[in-house]
Amino acid sequence: MILAGGAGTRFWPAGRRDRPKQLLSIASDDSMLRETLVRCADLAPPERTWIVTNERQAVDTRTEAPEIPADHVLAEPAMRNTAAAIAWAAARIARVDANAVMIVLPADHVIRPAELFTRTFAAAAQRATDAGTLLTVGIEPTGPATGYGYIETGDAVAEVDGFSVRAVKSFKEKPDAHTATRFLAAGGYLWNAGTFVWRATAFLEALKMHLPGHAAVLDAMEADLDAGRAPAAEVYERFENVPVDIGIMERADNVELIPGEFSWDDVGSWLALDRLRERDAKGNVTSGDVVALETSNCIVIGRPDHVVATIDLDDLIIVSTPDATLVCPKDRAEDVKKIVEELRNRGLDNRV
Amino acid sequence: MILAGGAGTRFWPAGRRDRPKQLLSIASDDSMLRETLVRCADLAPPERTWIVTNERQAVDTRTEAPEIPADHVLAEPAMRNTAAAIAWAAARIARVDANAVMIVLPADHVIRPAELFTRTFAAAAQRATDAGTLLTVGIEPTGPATGYGYIETGDAVAEVDGFSVRAVKSFKEKPDAHTATRFLAAGGYLWNAGTFVWRATAFLEALKMHLPGHAAVLDAMEADLDAGRAPAAEVYERFENVPVDIGIMERADNVELIPGEFSWDDVGSWLALDRLRERDAKGNVTSGDVVALETSNCIVIGRPDHVVATIDLDDLIIVSTPDATLVCPKDRAEDVKKIVEELRNRGLDNRV
Repeated sequence: MILAGGAGTRFWPAGRRDRPKQLLSIASDDSMLRETLVRCADLAPPERTWIVTNERQAVDTRTEAPEIPADHVLAEPAMRNTAAAIAWAAARIARVDANAVMIVLPADHVIRPAELFTRTFAAAAQRATDAGTLLTVGIEPTGPATGYGYIETGDAVAEVDGFSVRAVKSFKEKPDAHTATRFLAAGGYLWNAGTFVWRATAFLEALKMHLPGHAAVLDAMEADLDAGRAPAAEVYERFENVPVDIGIMERADNVELIPGEFSWDDVGSWLALDRLRERDAKGNVTSGDVVALETSNCIVIGRPDHVVATIDLDDLIIVSTPDATLVCPKDRAEDVKKIVEELRNRGLDNRV
Repeated sequence: MILAGGAGTRFWPAGRRDRPKQLLSIASDDSMLRETLVRCADLAPPERTWIVTNERQAVDTRTEAPEIPADHVLAEPAMRNTAAAIAWAAARIARVDANAVMIVLPADHVIRPAELFTRTFAAAAQRATDAGTLLTVGIEPTGPATGYGYIETGDAVAEVDGFSVRAVKSFKEKPDAHTATRFLAAGGYLWNAGTFVWRATAFLEALKMHLPGHAAVLDAMEADLDAGRAPAAEVYERFENVPVDIGIMERADNVELIPGEFSWDDVGSWLALDRLRERDAKGNVTSGDVVALETSNCIVIGRPDHVVATIDLDDLIIVSTPDATLVCPKDRAEDVKKIVEELRNRGLDNRV
C-alpha cells in the first residue's frame, strides 16, 4: 500500500498542489511514484498493490500507475493524515483478503538497492504474519539529522531471514541538534521512515483500541467499503487529523522494528538532487538545455524547450517551469515553502 | 533618420537576432524605438522621418512605427554598418528634397528631457543649414567611461540659439581607463553618441571624397534609388563594412560639434535598468509577477503570466522569457553576449 497524497511545497515551482513530489521526476527520469511501483513489484504484484491519494491527484496518479487496478487507487475526498489513509486501505484490503499483510510505503522516498529493500520488507512481512505485531522499518542514521523523527529500540526479540527484529521503546519527534547528537552517541536510535508492516486485521484491532474514533468512521463507511467506492466527504472528514506514528505506533505495545540497511533518502528538498543525480566536473546538477559559464555547484533545472543560462554563480538552485521560476541559494532550499505561502497570500493560487 | 538595425546580444534572452534592443521595452513600457519616434516628433513629422533597419527586423519595425510611411522604412538586404545605412538614406532623402537636413539618431538610446533634446538638435540642424558642415552632438562625460568613443573638441566657432558650436579636432576610439581619466582631466573631450546632423547633399559630397567606394555603390543603386525600392543584396553587399565615424567624420575637415547637455544613456546592458527604472525599497528593479524574499539590489524581469521567485539574493540579474532564462551577477552584465556566442557554438540558433 503506497501513500501518495503529499503536498510537496518544497519542490515548487515543479511541485504544485496538484503535482506533488511523487509525481515529479527527481531522482531519475521516472516519477518517484513510478520508481516506487517498480521497487515494490517484487514484494507484491499489481493486483495486490494499493495506492491512497486524494481526489485532486487521482487522475494523474492513475495515469502514472496504469498497471494498478483502478479500484485499488483510493482517492481521499479530504486530507486527514496517514492514520485515516491507512485505515481506509486496511478496511478495504481486509475485505479482499482476511489474511493480508500490508506493507505501507511512502511514494516519495528513494531507496537503493532494490534487492536489499525487497529482502528487508519481505522479512518484516514474514514477522508480521508469524507474530501479528506492528512493524516499522527504521533507518540507521548516517548523522545527527534534525529533520526526521527517531525510534528508540530495545532488545532483539527475533531474527527473520538474517534480519534482527527489535522491540520498540518509544517514538521521538524531530529532535533539536543537541538531542540528535545524544541519540547518535547513545546508539539504538533509528530514523522513522514512515514505513509500516502488519496484518490488515492486526492494524484494525489496534485502531479500535487506540483510535476508536477512526474505527467508528470506518463503521460509518461500511456500505462504501463493501461496494469498493469512496465515501462521501462529510463522512471522511470525521477522521481525526493524526499521523499513524502518533495515533497508533506510540500507543500500541506490540510494536517492533527491523533496521533498514539500504540507502534511504526522503528527498526533502531540491538539495536532494545533489545526492541523487550525477554532478558534472564543476559540481553542477543540470537538466534540460543549460549553458553554465563559470558556474559551479549549482542545481539548474531547465526544460527540453527552454535554455537556462548562467554566468559566474555558485551554490544556487535555479528551476524553470512554464509559469514560474525559482532562484535561491542552496542553504535556503527549505525556505522554498515560504514562496508558496507568499503566493497564497497574494492570491496567486494558480501558481501553487 | 533613425538607425534601427542593431543586434542587441547584451539583452539576451529578451533581445534576439530578430528582436534587437530598440524593439524591447527597457526604459519604460514602450519600446525604445517608440520612445525615439515620440522624442523626434517635434523635430520632424512622420512624413519626413526615415528608419533604416534590416530585412529580418523590417516587419516588426514597421509594426512599431505605424505612423511612418512604409517606403520610409529602408530594410537593408545585408548589414554593412552605419556609413552604408546613412548613405542609402541620404541618397533617397536628397531625391525627395534636395535641401533636406538629416538628423541621424540611434533608435536605442534614452535621452531626457525631450525638450532640451529637441532644442539641441534643432540648433544643430540650423547650423548645418547655414554652414553646410557635418555636425555631431557630443555628450558631456559624467565620468571616465571606457565604453564610449570620445571626441576631442577645439575652439567655439559659432553660437546658434544659445548652443555653442565647436570645431572637432579628432575622434578617439574607446580608451583604456588611464586614457579616459586623462581625457576628463584635460577637458574638451565629449562622448561620441553616434548622432549626426548635416545636409543630405553635404554628406553625399563627403562620401564621394572620403568613401568613394560607397559613392560608387550608390551609383550602382541608381535605378533602385529612383524607384524607391531596396537594392539587391549582391549590390548592397559591395558597401565596405565601416562606421560613419571612421569612414567620414575622422577624415572630413568640416566637422563640428554641439555639446548635448541632456541626460543620455546608451542602454548598454541589463544594468541600465538600475538607472532607468524605479527601484523598490530594497533596491530591486522588477517587472512582471515577482516574489522577492530577502532579496536586494537585483534586477528581476518576469512576465505577466510567469512568477519569478527569489530568496536571499543580492546584486543578481534574472530575466525570464518563454524559451530562455538568464541568471548572472550584475558585474557580469557585459558578458551576456558570451552566452549568445555559446548558444551559437552549440547550434542553438533558435535561442539567439
